[in-house]
Amino acid sequence: MNRREFNWGLLSVGAITALPDRQSKASPRINAERVMSHLTALSEFGKNPQGGVSRIAYSEADLMGRQYTMKLMREAKLDVGIDTAGNIIGRRAGSEAGLPPLVIGSHIDSVPEGGNYDGDVGSMGAIEVAQTLAENDIALRHPLAVIIFQNEEGGTFGSHAIAQGLTEKELDRVSNSGKTIRDGIKYIGGDPGRLEAARWKRGELAAYLELHIEQGGVLHSEKLNIGVVQGIVGISQWEVTIEGFANHAGTTPMDKRRDALLAAAGFISAVNRIVKNKPGRQVGTIGKIQAQPGAYNVIPGKVILGLELRDLDAAKIQTLFQEIHTESRQIAKTTGTEFSFKEVNSIVPALCDNRIQKVIDETAKQLGFTTKSMPSGAGHDAQEMAGLGPAGMIFIPSVDGISHSPQEFSEPGDIANGANVLLQVLLKLDSMKLV
Amino acid sequence: MNRREFNWGLLSVGAITALPDRQSKASPRINAERVMSHLTALSEFGKNPQGGVSRIAYSEADLMGRQYTMKLMREAKLDVGIDTAGNIIGRRAGSEAGLPPLVIGSHIDSVPEGGNYDGDVGSMGAIEVAQTLAENDIALRHPLAVIIFQNEEGGTFGSHAIAQGLTEKELDRVSNSGKTIRDGIKYIGGDPGRLEAARWKRGELAAYLELHIEQGGVLHSEKLNIGVVQGIVGISQWEVTIEGFANHAGTTPMDKRRDALLAAAGFISAVNRIVKNKPGRQVGTIGKIQAQPGAYNVIPGKVILGLELRDLDAAKIQTLFQEIHTESRQIAKTTGTEFSFKEVNSIVPALCDNRIQKVIDETAKQLGFTTKSMPSGAGHDAQEMAGLGPAGMIFIPSVDGISHSPQEFSEPGDIANGANVLLQVLLKLDSMKLV
Repeated sequence: MNRREFNWGLLSVGAITALPDRQSKASPRINAERVMSHLTALSEFGKNPQGGVSRIAYSEADLMGRQYTMKLMREAKLDVGIDTAGNIIGRRAGSEAGLPPLVIGSHIDSVPEGGNYDGDVGSMGAIEVAQTLAENDIALRHPLAVIIFQNEEGGTFGSHAIAQGLTEKELDRVSNSGKTIRDGIKYIGGDPGRLEAARWKRGELAAYLELHIEQGGVLHSEKLNIGVVQGIVGISQWEVTIEGFANHAGTTPMDKRRDALLAAAGFISAVNRIVKNKPGRQVGTIGKIQAQPGAYNVIPGKVILGLELRDLDAAKIQTLFQEIHTESRQIAKTTGTEFSFKEVNSIVPALCDNRIQKVIDETAKQLGFTTKSMPSGAGHDAQEMAGLGPAGMIFIPSVDGISHSPQEFSEPGDIANGANVLLQVLLKLDSMKLV
Repeated sequence: MNRREFNWGLLSVGAITALPDRQSKASPRINAERVMSHLTALSEFGKNPQGGVSRIAYSEADLMGRQYTMKLMREAKLDVGIDTAGNIIGRRAGSEAGLPPLVIGSHIDSVPEGGNYDGDVGSMGAIEVAQTLAENDIALRHPLAVIIFQNEEGGTFGSHAIAQGLTEKELDRVSNSGKTIRDGIKYIGGDPGRLEAARWKRGELAAYLELHIEQGGVLHSEKLNIGVVQGIVGISQWEVTIEGFANHAGTTPMDKRRDALLAAAGFISAVNRIVKNKPGRQVGTIGKIQAQPGAYNVIPGKVILGLELRDLDAAKIQTLFQEIHTESRQIAKTTGTEFSFKEVNSIVPALCDNRIQKVIDETAKQLGFTTKSMPSGAGHDAQEMAGLGPAGMIFIPSVDGISHSPQEFSEPGDIANGANVLLQVLLKLDSMKLV
């Protein structure tokens, strides 16, 4: 069986390399077979004929997937509702009065032509944890809230509504579904006129925990089980415009050219070199390029590039940008072009709580897993929730680091491991006082 | 007055630095004021509000411009007709029976948002030469044909129809006007069903001569009067595809990437270096680039580039391409990408007749002008006509080398000089036996 095929129906449970099911209150285990069957069932909503899934937020597939998810949450004995921002929240009471809830969750919306693991693993994992608690009659001191955030892929809209609120401008944005965020929220059962009711205040939660696939290839290539997330990187994006002079490619001698694309080539190489030259996990990418006028026989007079830098340390992003900016002046000089930079997006880094990182690392090791501390290079709902209280994230390996693709894949054993770590960390945090 | 403004109405003829009008049979001179007034009048057909002209082949503006041009040809005592391929041909009898015609001409169609000199100078210059001959009662031994070729800018279709014929596939091509070449030919008065009647055979002309703006900046920057064209360069174009692997720009470490755009950057720099490193007038250009999927947060998995090489020597183009190809294998290796090359267009170089080059050079010098031998980096109808008999081209300076732009400009004095050289060279060729 090609492990890339999404065909869990054929998967024998014996292949799952998870921990044995020692069902006890002291050390309960999640049901690996059940969580996989839920992932398989969820994969039907928005399934693409060519593989993977297009369960875009506010689409019919999204709506159907949410209904299925709410059914699972009710089976896990959660008290399920939709907040005014469209997030699904399943609640379970705690045994001690006056404590804020522990929150676990993720999202089930996907990018267009995405895979069946990004968001889904954390969502089905969180519900599985709740069901395991229910089946084992384990009472937590804190209330528990399982949140399935709406429209994470479009820009963490659901968690942003909870942590920061949404502006009118944000509500007017047209999402991938074709609907505005406002109409989308209405479509999935929210009430965009009463968004204030969905807001949480800082301190209203005891901790936030999210299980997620790494989406990078580090754990997989280093053959490690669990990633302990240090934080979600900051992201800065610039539109870089290079102005040269468009001219006839046949009649303009090589030494008389002001070729904007030649300048862009030097710039792309320089960005890669500058970002690689520093130690650390920072990344720098040119993902977009447009050359004008764009014909075989015309020297490009103008090039527009998209530059993105990411790191856990906002100051490091600034240092990298300064070096890139300085180098661009040199390139401009030698090519007879002009560079201009416009910052189009900036997301500050969100650090995970040190105590939670320590608990994740210790718990994973106690369960017999290897671990690695690492930044999350991708954005997550956790970055929004980190603004409300201590947050933590648990990564499991992505095979070959492929994500946002039908080829996205995580081993069933790794999914079970991650859900068990989520469960055990939750139990430990329940005994701590974090806020 | 801004010399960039196309406003010849304000131009005092005293500013024209052309030769004095010594009107004699031995050394007739063209009428500089008249040729400029014809260029001004022609510029009205397809004039753009923001400057320059869009007289695209087969547009209404083209049709109107052709009617105006035919009127001028009749005033120049030419016997005017349209061949079945849509070319305008004005004929004048020769004094000696059985000689093939001397042919002069150019085109009046423009690129979208082009200028008022490319093609127009040679067309109005050729008609002016015919009118000067008529006014001075100068009988040539050879018949004279003035040809205004249709749709030069779309790919020398009119001259190709005369020299090579047009295939059904070429007739089906959709031109910039929105019409197919077939419908366009019909629109301007040709008969696409009888194209064979428009074909000329090798030896059916005594010589072809074309006056044109340089379109490059060599004559202007070196302050020279006349370019003696050695030939029209060959053009080879390749579509270059670079395959890497598209992945998440946040989660994929720098050393795990197979970034097709980073490979493209190295390639663009390499092409420039390889082409510059050889002595000579060869040029190499990457004018087109497309990166997929093309988002800030995705490492480009695929890049498609347009590579073009031009030189008078076809073997040199091949040598350059081999070096580029070899270097691409090295870049592929270091970036984890794959390069593939598809040749999409190849035009062989067309050399100008050595005897005609010598006559142009000597004649220009006798008229007191400085000259320079140079390739034509741009394509021209002359490259088609060179297949039928000895051909020559006369270049005049383009200010700052700007062409295919509303900013295209040539000094009135240079235009008059070029037309006088065309006239005197024609008279000399008339006394020679070239074929």
